[in-house]
Amino acid sequence: MNGPFLDELILRALKEDLGERGDLTTDLVLPEEIRGKAGIWVKEEAILCGVGIASRVLTLMDPSLYVIPLYTDGDMVSPQTLVMEILGDLRSIFSAERTALNFLGRLSGIATLVRKFVEALEGTSVELLDTRKTTPGLRKLEKYAVQVGGGKNHRMGLFDGILIKDNHIRAVGSVSEAVRKAKANAPHGLKVEAEVQTLKEVEEALEAGADILLLDNMDLETVRQAVQMIQDRALVEVSGGITLENVRSYAEAGVDYISVGALTHQARWIDFSLEVMEVWKP
Amino acid sequence: MNGPFLDELILRALKEDLGERGDLTTDLVLPEEIRGKAGIWVKEEAILCGVGIASRVLTLMDPSLYVIPLYTDGDMVSPQTLVMEILGDLRSIFSAERTALNFLGRLSGIATLVRKFVEALEGTSVELLDTRKTTPGLRKLEKYAVQVGGGKNHRMGLFDGILIKDNHIRAVGSVSEAVRKAKANAPHGLKVEAEVQTLKEVEEALEAGADILLLDNMDLETVRQAVQMIQDRALVEVSGGITLENVRSYAEAGVDYISVGALTHQARWIDFSLEVMEVWKP
Amino acid sequence: MNGPFLDELILRALKEDLGERGDLTTDLVLPEEIRGKAGIWVKEEAILCGVGIASRVLTLMDPSLYVIPLYTDGDMVSPQTLVMEILGDLRSIFSAERTALNFLGRLSGIATLVRKFVEALEGTSVELLDTRKTTPGLRKLEKYAVQVGGGKNHRMGLFDGILIKDNHIRAVGSVSEAVRKAKANAPHGLKVEAEVQTLKEVEEALEAGADILLLDNMDLETVRQAVQMIQDRALVEVSGGITLENVRSYAEAGVDYISVGALTHQARWIDFSLEVMEVWKP
Amino acid sequence: MNGPFLDELILRALKEDLGERGDLTTDLVLPEEIRGKAGIWVKEEAILCGVGIASRVLTLMDPSLYVIPLYTDGDMVSPQTLVMEILGDLRSIFSAERTALNFLGRLSGIATLVRKFVEALEGTSVELLDTRKTTPGLRKLEKYAVQVGGGKNHRMGLFDGILIKDNHIRAVGSVSEAVRKAKANAPHGLKVEAEVQTLKEVEEALEAGADILLLDNMDLETVRQAVQMIQDRALVEVSGGITLENVRSYAEAGVDYISVGALTHQARWIDFSLEVMEVWKP
Amino acid sequence: MNGPFLDELILRALKEDLGERGDLTTDLVLPEEIRGKAGIWVKEEAILCGVGIASRVLTLMDPSLYVIPLYTDGDMVSPQTLVMEILGDLRSIFSAERTALNFLGRLSGIATLVRKFVEALEGTSVELLDTRKTTPGLRKLEKYAVQVGGGKNHRMGLFDGILIKDNHIRAVGSVSEAVRKAKANAPHGLKVEAEVQTLKEVEEALEAGADILLLDNMDLETVRQAVQMIQDRALVEVSGGITLENVRSYAEAGVDYISVGALTHQARWIDFSLEVMEVWKP
Amino acid sequence: MNGPFLDELILRALKEDLGERGDLTTDLVLPEEIRGKAGIWVKEEAILCGVGIASRVLTLMDPSLYVIPLYTDGDMVSPQTLVMEILGDLRSIFSAERTALNFLGRLSGIATLVRKFVEALEGTSVELLDTRKTTPGLRKLEKYAVQVGGGKNHRMGLFDGILIKDNHIRAVGSVSEAVRKAKANAPHGLKVEAEVQTLKEVEEALEAGADILLLDNMDLETVRQAVQMIQDRALVEVSGGITLENVRSYAEAGVDYISVGALTHQARWIDFSLEVMEVWKP
Repeated sequence: MNGPFLDELILRALKEDLGERGDLTTDLVLPEEIRGKAGIWVKEEAILCGVGIASRVLTLMDPSLYVIPLYTDGDMVSPQTLVMEILGDLRSIFSAERTALNFLGRLSGIATLVRKFVEALEGTSVELLDTRKTTPGLRKLEKYAVQVGGGKNHRMGLFDGILIKDNHIRAVGSVSEAVRKAKANAPHGLKVEAEVQTLKEVEEALEAGADILLLDNMDLETVRQAVQMIQDRALVEVSGGITLENVRSYAEAGVDYISVGALTHQARWIDFSLEVMEVWKP
Repeated sequence: MNGPFLDELILRALKEDLGERGDLTTDLVLPEEIRGKAGIWVKEEAILCGVGIASRVLTLMDPSLYVIPLYTDGDMVSPQTLVMEILGDLRSIFSAERTALNFLGRLSGIATLVRKFVEALEGTSVELLDTRKTTPGLRKLEKYAVQVGGGKNHRMGLFDGILIKDNHIRAVGSVSEAVRKAKANAPHGLKVEAEVQTLKEVEEALEAGADILLLDNMDLETVRQAVQMIQDRALVEVSGGITLENVRSYAEAGVDYISVGALTHQARWIDFSLEVMEVWKP
Repeated sequence: MNGPFLDELILRALKEDLGERGDLTTDLVLPEEIRGKAGIWVKEEAILCGVGIASRVLTLMDPSLYVIPLYTDGDMVSPQTLVMEILGDLRSIFSAERTALNFLGRLSGIATLVRKFVEALEGTSVELLDTRKTTPGLRKLEKYAVQVGGGKNHRMGLFDGILIKDNHIRAVGSVSEAVRKAKANAPHGLKVEAEVQTLKEVEEALEAGADILLLDNMDLETVRQAVQMIQDRALVEVSGGITLENVRSYAEAGVDYISVGALTHQARWIDFSLEVMEVWKP
Repeated sequence: MNGPFLDELILRALKEDLGERGDLTTDLVLPEEIRGKAGIWVKEEAILCGVGIASRVLTLMDPSLYVIPLYTDGDMVSPQTLVMEILGDLRSIFSAERTALNFLGRLSGIATLVRKFVEALEGTSVELLDTRKTTPGLRKLEKYAVQVGGGKNHRMGLFDGILIKDNHIRAVGSVSEAVRKAKANAPHGLKVEAEVQTLKEVEEALEAGADILLLDNMDLETVRQAVQMIQDRALVEVSGGITLENVRSYAEAGVDYISVGALTHQARWIDFSLEVMEVWKP
Repeated sequence: MNGPFLDELILRALKEDLGERGDLTTDLVLPEEIRGKAGIWVKEEAILCGVGIASRVLTLMDPSLYVIPLYTDGDMVSPQTLVMEILGDLRSIFSAERTALNFLGRLSGIATLVRKFVEALEGTSVELLDTRKTTPGLRKLEKYAVQVGGGKNHRMGLFDGILIKDNHIRAVGSVSEAVRKAKANAPHGLKVEAEVQTLKEVEEALEAGADILLLDNMDLETVRQAVQMIQDRALVEVSGGITLENVRSYAEAGVDYISVGALTHQARWIDFSLEVMEVWKP
Repeated sequence: MNGPFLDELILRALKEDLGERGDLTTDLVLPEEIRGKAGIWVKEEAILCGVGIASRVLTLMDPSLYVIPLYTDGDMVSPQTLVMEILGDLRSIFSAERTALNFLGRLSGIATLVRKFVEALEGTSVELLDTRKTTPGLRKLEKYAVQVGGGKNHRMGLFDGILIKDNHIRAVGSVSEAVRKAKANAPHGLKVEAEVQTLKEVEEALEAGADILLLDNMDLETVRQAVQMIQDRALVEVSGGITLENVRSYAEAGVDYISVGALTHQARWIDFSLEVMEVWKP
């Protein structure tokens, strides 16, 4: 989460809310000299994520604000917990409020959902992975939230991992052909992963030398047979149709990784609010 | 949704997925000369949103792709509907696939949820509004999805509407003071809206000249009393705790507008997928 | 005037003057170790505007410069007044000089002209408004200068106000049709303003429910009749052909707002200069 | 005026007016399918400047607009002349109107004022030059307008010319010292110009080898004496206090160049308007 | 090499050469209506690289130029070969000339040097790899030139490969510790590569489970021993001190990959020139 | 080398190496709390260039790093010299290492080669100049390295100098015609330089009034004759085919400037490395 790169994203979000004209209401209603203390509360049980980002939203809005985080990313908090305090110009605080809360709500929503999956997997050695089904423009942050929740990241994008999918296979004609081509020219530090739909394809992919097999949308029983077939010849990932209810069964079928799109695309926001705690008038 | 401004956002999303190195797998596996036809299917019932944006993702990736939309934003589609066809270089199509689907999934998710609220309000004259609780960086698109679903947009940001909230009131001391200040200096084309929590505040805000009252987190009975008090002296909006179940009761209490944060922050993605339909080899 | 957004604009202006090669003359002529004190003088009577921006130009050029403003935006200053002192590396001061002075000259020019109109309106309750006839790229600053001079801002752009103009009316066929359409779908926080050219259009617009009427290019007598017709049914703005000479007559005709394009597009620059006051050699 | 670089500037201007929300009024009032023809008229006598830029504003807004320029930059036009016609989607035309007119008004204002100075110099061999007193962010365009009016450009910025000014001289102690330093290290393709205030400084600068002398704020008589002293030893520029009334006397005093800040900072806008000419409904 | 991303880089290079003022000489000397044909010649034997990029430089400068490439990236060309012809406005061609040639010279220089190494390795199965020692801002293009020359790319940056270097090892205390930590948490699609300096470290790294060993700056004899020790337990890369003279001996020592920083940081430019072939005057 | 403009370039280089995912290896292997001291060593004799830039790379990566430069740009250093020390978070140091070294290697390579030419010219009064044959995107820095090595800069780009080249001459028909046109309209602060290939062209260019002649690719004897012909009528530059071996002979032929493309396009990188010196664990 290095600063100079993140700042661009945050400034874009602030501009989206402030436009060229700024915070009309606050400018009209609050006197220039008003100072005070405000708090950000979480309204429901959650795994916190975005505390550092929300702080940065506030200090990018106004470097003279003083932010005191009381919890940190990854902490589980109960409803009505005071998460951070902010001291300084109330006008700046109000103008940055919604942007800060939007980051907190979205990212904590993901971290909280991820934690539920992680708990469902407790005691197994399976790694929980995210996917590339992330909100356009927020991938880096949403993948960070997955880590905060206790999951691990699948590839960041098309550029840092090789994953042969069904469309690739359809385009070139067969799993074996696709895997062979990838193995022949893959950058030397990357493993070759292939998505397979049937046990026949499992065998084909293994023979062509795939390093990882992604069992796509297979039912539990087929997954068990595939794991049996594969043994130590490749690592095994499952994906498709995984829910909080069935995730443990898949883990116990002996796979190495479970990737779940829902971690990001089905996460609901956690509710946060900012409230004035003290008003200091000159 | 004018082009030059939207393109920046789309390019940012494409870069996020492609990085400096591009689509490794596709480059490794597919021959240069491969052409074909692919389709985008929706997997569940939905209100479509993002057809134009997904097309633009594809043609920004490769201007020689030919995109045929079969449905348009706002259409209700049933599961397994073919939404658009794309003809051309399969490598470009695969490289843009995830970015296009991510826009479609997120925006259709919002439009679909909005439509449910709109249906719950059918026959009333109440307007359904969104809030500023949108994903950082995507507000313009998410507010567009609200329109596509049949809702209307509240202010776009802090810069194009005046809404005195509880924090403003706490900071200046009273509703009357806050409203008076806003009325005195508001840009002449903007109405002054004030958030009120009690019937006493309703009266205060009316006397100070508020054009619109936002009844915040009031129970249904209090809303009814407030509407009674207000009569034609101001327009009335309710917000807070509105669900698909109770939205109609609030509407029938006589308010003019209902704003619902859940439209954007509780929307789940609609599932879309891209499949190769034909492969043309030279 | 919040910092992070303004900085982009200022950096762009500095780059325009410095290019890739920097300040050739200063680099050739001044030794590296030279320090000193310089002052910025205004050469004619003016309402100051741009003191904060000029300071920021200097400290963006070189954060080690020490700037002491002696007056602030909105102050009336007489000819040959020392407006600010700058201490530090003379080379940085010289390199930023012209950019700082250009902002001061343009913005003070506007504020000074605005003040003359404001004085002409003294004692009336009419509000003086600007228009969108601003220099491309500088609207936010030029509208700020209008405020500093004592005027108020009309809408910032096409995005934060509704104003039906003659071309809209021609396109849809009639004032009533245009106003009706706007009223039916306007964002709920915005008033609908319509430009009218004749008394007949005044009546039409009122009946269709316009909140504000903009009497465009009407002579004084017609304005008086229009005000008479309108009474309390709408707010009234006049525009077109307003000069320092006739502005008060229009105000006394009973209108609420007078908007004047000349505030920005006919303003001449105020003359400022920067002079070295002391040279400190090691 | 090459395209890719100019487009950035124009897009920035369009965004300033359209914001994230676009042209509210036009979107509310005009039906999607409306097409038509509009014209841009100049309302007063002027030297046109900005025809190409205004066209580009329109086609960047909507590439399907068809623009027919009837005059070109540099043409003298009389009041009420139709300058260009635009065919296509009236909604796009209205949304780009103000931005296009703002460029035309500002740039034609400069070109028109420049032409007056050029006419005052007719028959002399003196070159009329601009200065760096240009609107921040618009220098390139404003200097282009000077050319269109018949003037020539002084240096574009601090990076492409050497001009030793009074502050440099004060900082290093004497004209001779400053000129000597510049001559010793100047990039080999650039002449060294020095600003001088007295006849004594003229002599000093000549002896130190200045290629061009800038006689700053000298009265006409002193200019004549300076020209006499200088003969062919250097080129001569005058600046400061030049008006339309006295510019010819300075020219006749035998100088080579006259630079006039007023060309850009005292220019008033020329009045243009856009009017719908035909409306085509489906 | 996808267009929208590359264009930014090319525009930056064009702006660097053209600044705000454009091509002064061409604007002064050539008449507006001049058209013609120009050719780009290579002056020495080379592997071409940058033909597509140079074409894009030209058409970004002026979309009406017509570019005819006569050779393509990867072709070996002899001295004085005509590489491409350009038809159209000679002024645009001259203004883009240097930028186009600079890309061609730098990239062909790399491709040509790479080809020499590739030839030295002919008949072996070793892969020749580049490093991250690339010109800041040009990595993507320089790595592309390596491909064109016949080499393969090592990781694109720190983000898409795991390579434990001596500094990492020094920081954590031992090879084993470093490899163990990396293996435990590496993204599942990436192999773990470790740099080792001694045979003792080779053994340690193998035991800790490294997938690839990078033998750093080892002499040929030690490399042979290391290869012997490693057998099939890991892939083997050598780096450090590799020259055209000794590269084959290293390859024959049985390694899998040889990475050579010199491919990019010791490449000299290939000499290209642009000459007018025909001038068409109206 | 002013900060705000340079930072953009450095951030771009850092992003190129770090991507969206950051430094995977360091994040995997090093604990968060690790601190220490590292040094940058030069491995061969060199003229240093890029010390300030490398420092800025490090502090932009992490503002809490403490950088101690032991030498400065322009210093001649012997092999194995410790150039700078860096204290702080080892993880930040490792992540910025390659980018910092790449700037140092490239820029010191240029400065070192330039110094060799400067030494070859010692005792003559000739000025050594660079050309526009610079790496796209790095011109400003590479020209800075030429200064550091003791050379001087030719024009920065097409925008700040006039140089009529053979292609211009071919396009307009003759040297005289080209020079005459340039002299007639050149910005008044710029000299007119013309490239000539024969003694006949020398005479033509002189008669047309060229201020500087560039003798292009002439053999030494012809250069001597040209110098004889030219006398004091113009300044003389030679270019083309200049090497370390023959540069002094050209200088002694009596020219004023020698420009050498090889300074930038034939420079090899100087080898630098970063090594951990101390590790501080908590």
